[in-house]
Order: sequence, then C-alpha cells, then structure tokens
Amino acid sequence: MNRMDNILRPRSIAVIGASRKEGSLGSMFLQAVLNMNFKGKIYPINPKADEIMGLKTYPDLQSLPAKPDLAVILLSYNYVPESLKEAGEAGIRDVIVISAGFKEIGGEGIVREQQLVELAKKYGMNLLGPNCMGVFNTDPAVSFNGTFSPTLPNPGHVAYVSQSGALGVAILELAAKTDLGFSVFVSTGNKADISDSDTLEFLYEDSNTSVITMYLENISKPDQFRKISSKIAAIKPILALKAGRTESGFRAASSHTGALANPEYIIDGYLKQCGIIRKDNLEELFDAARALAAQPLPEGPRVAIVTNAGGPGILASDAVDRFGLQLAEISEATVKKLQSVLPEEASAANPVDMIASANHETYRDVLEIVLADPNVDSVVLIIVKPPVNTTPKQIIESLDSIVHNCSKTIIPVLMAQRDENAGLKKFKELHLPVYSYPEAAVKALATMWQYQQIQQRFRKSEAVVVTPRSDDLLETGSGEENKQAPLENLEDLLHQYDIKTVPSIITDSLEEILRFKDQHDKIVLKIANEQIIHKTEAGLVNLNLESDSAVREAFTDIHTKAARLLPDGIAPKFLAQKQLARGIELVLGGKRDVLFGPVIMVGIGGIFIEVLKDVAFRIAPVNAYEAREMIGELRSQALLNGFRGNPEVDRDAFAYAIQRFSLLFAEHPEIAEMDLNPLIWSPAEQALVAVDVRATLLKSSRPE
Amino acid sequence: MNRMDNILRPRSIAVIGASRKEGSLGSMFLQAVLNMNFKGKIYPINPKADEIMGLKTYPDLQSLPAKPDLAVILLSYNYVPESLKEAGEAGIRDVIVISAGFKEIGGEGIVREQQLVELAKKYGMNLLGPNCMGVFNTDPAVSFNGTFSPTLPNPGHVAYVSQSGALGVAILELAAKTDLGFSVFVSTGNKADISDSDTLEFLYEDSNTSVITMYLENISKPDQFRKISSKIAAIKPILALKAGRTESGFRAASSHTGALANPEYIIDGYLKQCGIIRKDNLEELFDAARALAAQPLPEGPRVAIVTNAGGPGILASDAVDRFGLQLAEISEATVKKLQSVLPEEASAANPVDMIASANHETYRDVLEIVLADPNVDSVVLIIVKPPVNTTPKQIIESLDSIVHNCSKTIIPVLMAQRDENAGLKKFKELHLPVYSYPEAAVKALATMWQYQQIQQRFRKSEAVVVTPRSDDLLETGSGEENKQAPLENLEDLLHQYDIKTVPSIITDSLEEILRFKDQHDKIVLKIANEQIIHKTEAGLVNLNLESDSAVREAFTDIHTKAARLLPDGIAPKFLAQKQLARGIELVLGGKRDVLFGPVIMVGIGGIFIEVLKDVAFRIAPVNAYEAREMIGELRSQALLNGFRGNPEVDRDAFAYAIQRFSLLFAEHPEIAEMDLNPLIWSPAEQALVAVDVRATLLKSSRPE
Repeated sequence: MNRMDNILRPRSIAVIGASRKEGSLGSMFLQAVLNMNFKGKIYPINPKADEIMGLKTYPDLQSLPAKPDLAVILLSYNYVPESLKEAGEAGIRDVIVISAGFKEIGGEGIVREQQLVELAKKYGMNLLGPNCMGVFNTDPAVSFNGTFSPTLPNPGHVAYVSQSGALGVAILELAAKTDLGFSVFVSTGNKADISDSDTLEFLYEDSNTSVITMYLENISKPDQFRKISSKIAAIKPILALKAGRTESGFRAASSHTGALANPEYIIDGYLKQCGIIRKDNLEELFDAARALAAQPLPEGPRVAIVTNAGGPGILASDAVDRFGLQLAEISEATVKKLQSVLPEEASAANPVDMIASANHETYRDVLEIVLADPNVDSVVLIIVKPPVNTTPKQIIESLDSIVHNCSKTIIPVLMAQRDENAGLKKFKELHLPVYSYPEAAVKALATMWQYQQIQQRFRKSEAVVVTPRSDDLLETGSGEENKQAPLENLEDLLHQYDIKTVPSIITDSLEEILRFKDQHDKIVLKIANEQIIHKTEAGLVNLNLESDSAVREAFTDIHTKAARLLPDGIAPKFLAQKQLARGIELVLGGKRDVLFGPVIMVGIGGIFIEVLKDVAFRIAPVNAYEAREMIGELRSQALLNGFRGNPEVDRDAFAYAIQRFSLLFAEHPEIAEMDLNPLIWSPAEQALVAVDVRATLLKSSRPE
Repeated sequence: MNRMDNILRPRSIAVIGASRKEGSLGSMFLQAVLNMNFKGKIYPINPKADEIMGLKTYPDLQSLPAKPDLAVILLSYNYVPESLKEAGEAGIRDVIVISAGFKEIGGEGIVREQQLVELAKKYGMNLLGPNCMGVFNTDPAVSFNGTFSPTLPNPGHVAYVSQSGALGVAILELAAKTDLGFSVFVSTGNKADISDSDTLEFLYEDSNTSVITMYLENISKPDQFRKISSKIAAIKPILALKAGRTESGFRAASSHTGALANPEYIIDGYLKQCGIIRKDNLEELFDAARALAAQPLPEGPRVAIVTNAGGPGILASDAVDRFGLQLAEISEATVKKLQSVLPEEASAANPVDMIASANHETYRDVLEIVLADPNVDSVVLIIVKPPVNTTPKQIIESLDSIVHNCSKTIIPVLMAQRDENAGLKKFKELHLPVYSYPEAAVKALATMWQYQQIQQRFRKSEAVVVTPRSDDLLETGSGEENKQAPLENLEDLLHQYDIKTVPSIITDSLEEILRFKDQHDKIVLKIANEQIIHKTEAGLVNLNLESDSAVREAFTDIHTKAARLLPDGIAPKFLAQKQLARGIELVLGGKRDVLFGPVIMVGIGGIFIEVLKDVAFRIAPVNAYEAREMIGELRSQALLNGFRGNPEVDRDAFAYAIQRFSLLFAEHPEIAEMDLNPLIWSPAEQALVAVDVRATLLKSSRPE
C-alpha cells in the first residue's frame, strides 16, 4: 500500500469548501471533478447548501453516509487546521490541502504549517500540500481531476510531478492540442508531509505511467529520493527540470573542495546518481518525454536521416554530431537498393535526400530499405510539405505497416502546417511523436539513447549501502574552532582504505631525516605541525633535496622560520617525503554538505582546478561506474592520456582510489572537509599516491 | 540601382514554362503568383497554349508585347541554357532559374552551371539560382510571390534569405499561424551569380525590412559579404544559422595556429566581425527575429519579471542569469508602490509574483509601476492562464495604453491555450511577440540586448581597409617545400610593427654570447638554425644561465648535439636571449585560410592551448574592439588577472599587440603560418614580449 494510493485512486472524495459561487475555487474544483466524469462518489461539504451542481451536499464530515477515501480542503488558511482535525477525527487518512498561506509566506504561515504536520502525524494521515494545485489521474478506471483546471488533460502515459502548481496548469494548457498525453499529475506544493519520493513510489508501480517528468525547486530527503528514483531508472525514465537555487549553499570553506562545492555541481552529480536525466528547459523536458512515451528505445547511437529536402537534413546531421549521436554508415547494399528507387539527383548516402519530388511511395520504399540496414539504430524522418504529388497525411498513411512492424526508433519531423493534410491523427495512432524542427527531434532522440544506457546500468548495479562507523574515528576538537587533523592519523586512515601515500616520516630529528634520505634518491622536507596551513607560502617546503648538506641546510632554515610562527612551547615537527617523479596532479576531496551529507570531488590539480574549476562531484560513497563517470566528466581529458611526457594515468586505478576515498569519507562523519592534493599516478607502484593530505575535523562530532 | 531590384520588385514578369497541368511546377508557380495578387503584369510563356489561368499566353519571349522586368525559368535542366540565351537576346536583364540539375548534382551539372554563368556574363544579366525556390516580397506595392508555395506568407518585417529553398517553404508553413511576419524571402540556391551579398545590398535599403534572418550552408565572397553585413549591422540586425561544414577545411599545418584553425572557430570569429548574430537552431533564429521585429531594443541588460505564478518566474530568473542578462534591482519606492496594489501573499521583489488571484487590473497596475522604475530596462510579462476573474485577452486589452506609450522592451510569455480567450489579435496589434515558455522569451530578449551592443559598436567603428603591401616581403622558397623564415628577419619584421621581442643576439661566437650575458641577469641559450624545429625536444634549449661557466658548458653541449643534426657544411648558430621573469604564456598566431585569407589566433599558451584549445580566431586585420573581444573569449580569464603571483596582463597592451600582429600578417601574404609562442607580459617594459617566433613562408608567393 502506497501513501499516494488513496490520493491518486480514490473511490470517494469529500470536497471541503465546495461552493456554487461562480468563479470561486470551491465551484471550479467541483466543476473540474465533474468534467472528467470521476468514477467514484463525491461528497460536497458546505454548511450553507443542501445541493451543489446536482450533488447532495453535507454540512460537515460527521454527516456523511460513509467515510470517504480522500478529503480535499479548499478553505481559507485560517480554517484549515480545524478542518484537518475534523477529518482526522472522522477517520479520514488521506487529505489534499489546496489552500495557500503557509510556509511559503513565512512568519505565522510557518507556524500554521507546523500545526498541519503535527495533526497529520497525530492521526496517521497522508497529507499532500498545502499550497498545491491538487492531482489528476487519467487512468480510465479512476478518471479523477482533482485540480481546478477547466482544461481536461490529454490522456497518455507521461506523469508530471510539479513543485509549482501553476506550471502544471500552464503545461496542461500548452499541451492541450499536441501529442503530449498525461497519466498522472501531482502538484506537491509545500511538501509538508508527502514528498516527491512518495509520489515516485506510486509511479514506480503505476502501469499507466511509462515516463516521469518532474519540475523541482528543491530536493527534500535526498537519500529517500535517490533510493526510489534509482529503482525506477531501471524500468522507466525520469526527466527533471531543476530550477532556482538549492539549499546546499556555499559556506565558509577551509579546503579546495569546500570552496569549489557549487550547489549546482553537486546537484548535477546527485541527479546522475539517481538515474535522472536533467533538462535545461520545459520545452526540452516535454519534447523528450513525448519521444520516450511513444517510441521504443534505440539499441544504439547510429541514426539514419531520411528527408525530402536538403537543408533540414543538414540541420539534423549537425544536431546528430552535437548531441552525441552518430550518423549511421549505411551499407553498400542499402545504397544500391536506395538508388534503385530514387531519382538520379537524389542522395542515397546518409542523410538520404529523396529531393522534393518524393511522394508517399518513395517514403515507404526508402524507409523500408533504411530500417532493414543492420547499421541503423534509429531513423529521423523529415517531411517538408511536399510541393507536388502527395501530402504529409498520405505519406504517413503509406507508412502504416512498416511502422507497425518496426522495433527501431522512428522520430518524425513535420515541417508543414497542422491542417487536415497533416495526418496528425495517423501519427498518433502509430505512436509517432511529431516535431516541428529537426534539432528538437534529434535532441529528443539523443535523450532516448541516453536513457537506454542509464537503464542498462541501473538494471545491473546494486545500491551501495553505507552505515557510518562509530569506531576508529579521529579525535575531534572541543573548542569553537574546527581543527586540522594530525598528518600521522590521516596517513593511517588512508592506508586502512588502501589509498597509498608517498613514503614519509614525521620527526623532529635531523638524524632520522638523514637516514630516511639514504633510502630515497631525492626527498622533500616540509613543516609538519598542523597549526601551519599555508606551508609553501611561508617558505616551509623544500623540494628536490639530494645531498646530506642540502638536507641539513633545509632543516635549519625551516626550523628558524617555523619557530617564529608556532605558539610558544610547540616545537617544529618535520615531514620528510620521498620526492616523486613528475606526473599530472590530480585532486580528491570531500566536504560535508548541509543537504546531501558526504560529497566528494575529483579534479585535475594545480592551475586547472583553480582557473577552470575542472571538477566533478558526487554523493559519497560511489560505485565503480560512478567513479569512472566522474573521471569522464573532467574537461582536460588530454592530461590524463599522458600529456607532454607525463605517464598516462591508469583510469581503473584512479577509479579505485576514488571509490576507496568516497567510502572513507562516508564512514568518517567527524571529518568536515578533506583534500588529497596532489594525488599523483605512479607508474612504478601502479597506483595513485597522495602527496599532500589535509583534513578539517568537526568541532565535536564524536558520538557520545 | 541594386542587382536585386528587378528580381524583388518586378513590374512585369515572364513565366517560362508556365503550365496548366495540375500539380506541375509551371502550374503551381503561376497559381502562387496569382494567389498573392501580384501588382504587375504577368506573361506566361508556353508554345502549346494560348491562355493559362485566364492569362494570355505567349509561345516565346519574342512574341511579348513589351519587355518584362524579370524572367523566371521553370523548364527541365536541359532546356535552361537555351532559354537563358533567348532571354539575353530579348534584352531581359533579370532572371530567376528555379530548375535544378546543376552544380548540386556534380559531373555534367557543373558544366551546365558554368554555361549559365557565361551567358549571364555575356548578356550582363543578374541571375538568381539555379536550383532555388524563388523569391517573394510582401510589400503591398509589389505583392510578388515568386515561389511555388501555396501558403501565403504573413506580411511583416522579417526578411529571410535561405540557401535551402525547402527551409523557406518549411518556415512559411510553420509560421503560418504565428506572429512571425515576412517582408522578403530569397532562396539563393547554387549562388551561381547573385550571392548573399547582393541580397543584403537590397535589404540594406528595403524600408519594409527591419530584421534579416539567414540560413547559410557556405559563405561565398567573404570580403564582400562582410562589407555589406557590417554596414547593415549599424541599422538593422542580421541573425544567421550556419549549417554544415565550411570549405575552409583543415590542411596539413606546420604551426600551432594551423593545427588549431578549426573552420568552426574561424566562422564564429568571422560572423562576429560581420556584426552577425549566430544562432544554434531555426527555432531560436525566428524566436529572436520576432522580438527584434516587434519591440524596441532594451537600453540595458536589467530585466524585471512580472508573473502570476511562481514557477515560471523562477524559470525566467534562471534564464536571465544563464543568457547574460541581469535581474533588475527595483527601487524601494517601486517595492512600496507594488505592495500597495498587491495582496500580502504576493512578492513585490523581482521577480514580481502577483500570485494566481491577479486580474487584468493587477497586471495593469503592476506593469505601469515596474516600467516607471529607472532601474528597469525591460519586462518579461508572464501570463499563466488565470484560474479566476479574468482571461489573457482581458489582461492584454487592459495593457493597451501602457504598452502604446512605452519605449521599454516588453516580452510576453503566454502559458495558455491559443483560443478565443488568448487575445492573440491584441498582442499583434500592440506589437508584442508571444512566447510559450519563459526560457525562450528570455533568450530572445538576450539577443535583443546583444544586438543593441552590436549596433552601438558598428555605428562608431570604421572599416579597416588593408591592401597587402608588395615591398619588404620576406624571401620565400623556390623548391617544393615550404621553408622556415630566418629568425633575424622575423625579429626585424616584428619591430617594424612595434611588437617587442626579447633582447637577443644570433651568433656563432662564444665570446659574443658571454658579452651579451654580462648585460643581463640570466640568459637562455638555444640553437638558432631554422633547419631544427623541435629545439626543446632535441635538448637544444638551456634556460636560466647565470654564470660564465654555465654559459660555456651549455655552448659546448648545444654545439655537439646540433652538429649531429645539421646538414654537412652548416655550422651551428646560437640564439642568446635575456631570460624573462616568469609570466603567463600567451600565444599569437596567423594562418592563411583557403576561404578567408589571413586569419589570426589568440590563445593562452602551454598546456592551455594544447589541452583546452583555449583560443579565439578572427580575420586579419582586427580593430581595437575586435582585439579586446578576442581576449574576452578566452575561457581561462583568471590567468590574465594575475594568477599565482604572476603579474596581471595589461589588456590594452595585449589588444595593441594583437592589432599590430594582425596588420603584419595581413600585409605579408608571403607568410603561410606564423606563431609568437610564448608571448609574455613584461611589467618592466609595459608591453607584450615575444620570446619565440616561428614562421613558414609560402613556396613562392613573391609577386613577380
């Protein structure tokens, strides 16, 4: 039993605040329910009426002949808490509060919303809203329009979950005359109780929904949301438009990772981990949904373009390149067959330009030939209004049997008026979504291919479950200040997770350092006291020390400088490290985010991370696929391939280090921020080696 | 007198190949001319008919009672040359050839097209086509539909020039029920004679055209095209969609610049120099054109958003950020006024969310208040179908007087059905373009702001005219191989153009090098022979030489190594340079492009140019604005601002060096490719200093 079952599939509803006053919400709502021929029982509640719109009306919930599945509250905000309480007393467990005037207005609205939450808890209710636009479900067995929209939705298989109610109404309006058809609409409003995740749980099982679209302004309960969305991703696509700023926010940061943790970067990584495809704008969101709801997924990225006009074919080819698809290389045999049905002036290569003389028979012959080519995964079928011989309607009708028996993806572009010659009914019957422009069609197709890969992945992958460990934590601070973790402890910690660090010792003894030097060609000598953060800037890092005398000189120099910087009574400690061969500097970092918890970052170091912000974020821990995906998102890929004499970075080893680090960071909630910077690929050790490690511990996070 | 005058404003036309056979081109064309009530005289030509569609028909051009302004040839390709000849003999100077079967099919088609070109030349004709879809002009004084499109164009002020005829038909079809209105359409086809530039010359003077849109597959005669387009840019916007691959092409390159000269980068820079705004797809092209044709340009980037629903307001705000506009900071006084007309739950900040209860009076009051704020340059006005009280039609009607008297930009978003309540007629009457989605509206507005800046610039700037010099050229090679220019000559050349090079000498004398060293703190010693290209890789560059002994050692080392690499009988030459203080490595380069001629590149050097291709291209020479624009296009801007202790690069000095270099390269056609790499900002000299210079000379370009 899902929390949304009675809200989206009620067998009876009470409409609290139903009204006969024209133009009032109470009247419009009831009208909307009636307009869609709701299959269940309707109980209008209004103490001042016996009958509204032909329905027997009751003064209150107590007077009802039976307990309704769902109550919808339309009253002004000050009456809502009392009304909700009455519903609770009457044993009603499912309620939609349409009324506004709660958290969204701040001040006492927040208090009022808290009252609702408490009442819902007390009575064990499922509460949708407040400040929402309601729901609808076009499933013929339900036929419930619980919004006050006079525009009836096209029935179909796209669910739309919207944090903005108005964007629900708007899309319904704009979609009214298109081939976008809806299964379910949910306006989540303030999400006081029922969240996006509850809705997704319903949609996971709703067989009438094959594509889910979402408009999100914020993400609440990210763990729960990710769990259900990645379960859904294996069986149906979720497309989301994320608008506005997130709550993550920038906070004062003591690490690179912290400073770069742009909430938008985190959201991007998070949505990928959820298996959700992020879209830039509403039009693209629904353009992609239409294709996904209508056509089978392409088996591969290879697109054939069939057109009766050159220009649109070129635009489609450009878009194929741009959006990550490939122009199919059609076979010699296919070209020959095409030549036999096309005039001399036509082009039998891909894009197949049949030229303006093509009629419906040409379309039929060419489409059949092209679809039969095993090098073709999908076809973009362009129909510019033919000057002679035929109409789009005749063309599409002639394709009936081919499209019917085809398991490849076909995406049509109809560059003609939407009149009686356009054949729109037939397009719909054949489950062909219609686009006006080649670029939009190819973009939708590219999203289908993207989802096909996501689906494969989420069918295989198992969720990583991590429970933070409570033992072996680092000693955190007790005062006001966050404190730096001691290097020794950090190295131990990294080794526990199989992350290599450069050979080193921490000591205050020159003799010990000289002995260490004897084991390595060259060493680096730095100050080790965690009180000093900007070591390089203070001249406390000496590189490339080869001789004993150089080591002695560096030791004395650091000792003198550090003594001036350290608090009284604290002696300088030294870090001696083996000097590594040069290599590309990588960075791994972690930050605890307000909303998402442990977040990790991968980047290419030095100037690249600072100037170009060439980084990728995910919520920790990550699996192998996610780690590789992070590496793939870095723009400076050429650096990883062995640039300018540097060795090529082993991506498997890099992905392994990312996974191990992400687990470390997830399992150590006492660490606020952490940087491995630089992290260098060592061909000798066939591993990534952390050269510098830094971590800030929380003030007092140790569980009591 | 413009070459297109008789083609776009004919007073009489001969239709060669007119036909009464239903569905034939000859019939459709004549029908189309008649449909739009052509104001001039029509002479159908067909030897087999006396009358077609009620018009007296003539057997040939000789039989006409008067000489027509324009002949349109619709015959099958093999009859076209003969027919064109007859037109020439008959003294007709303006001809459109619709027929296909020429260059576009290759082989004998190319020969046939050449015949047309020669005939046109012989008779002094203006020839549009072949393989084109014709033209139309909606100017009421002309009313000429010379295409065979049965769909009559909406009259308006957007001109559309399309290399693809089909994209003309397609756009006409798709625009039929929108507010996109056309002045002129020209299908340029194969551009055998009349080019885009000729059409632009006409549109420059056509007072019925206020916005020009173009679909280009290639650019022909780039100099002429740039001259007219930058003249137009000062008075009306040109928007272009450039599709497909350009002819520039990659060729084997001997320089960085050559290797990076991606035709798409060059086209991008070139179109900016033309004052043309490049668009990504057809929808954006016409979305922007509609706004530009209807509304005044915004005076600045500050946008106020007025909405009756939160979600669309947030989407619009996000788009304002993304597309380079700013959310206007409305004044305290404005906020107070807004509060006085809005309910408590509304938001009086920008975006101004009037909430769902807003009726037409709220819209009127709020729009009036917001437009009066001097901090607001433009308003995005969002109308989600109101649930109660009013309709979009009532809203827009109530705005009549405000919009009428307003010189600020208003861009409406109508998220409602296009039915009788939508008020579309009123929108049109008020010159308000209508968008369905907030993102598309903001993107169109951003293009208006972009054009407003282009207009300012092109009103001021004078065209740079450069005639390549024929004296002082470098000695080019005579053999098969391109040759490297000697360093000495290149330094002289750079100094002539006031481009600094690092102090250096070229010599084979160690004594001379030691004397040079005495004048500088540190020097660099390299091999100077132009036969050796990869100096660093061969170990022939020694940096940071401070002492005499270091110089001696380096000299001997280079001498030994170089002797092995140089041909017999050639002695090593040495380049001693002052060692500059470190700084960001910049790059300036030039390459001679097949299509565009001298092309220059600016980049950030070293790893950035190679890994990130962080470069900008322009056709040389460039003016100060263009040089600064190139600098602004570099993605790694932070490096120029003085990164990690490097001095901040003076952008004026950088722009000056770019200008001078661009002039040098334009004036020296004997140089095929040239790199200044690195070029370093020297705070001491307050100039950019070229540290390494390399140039490849053409085989034999010296004018005889």
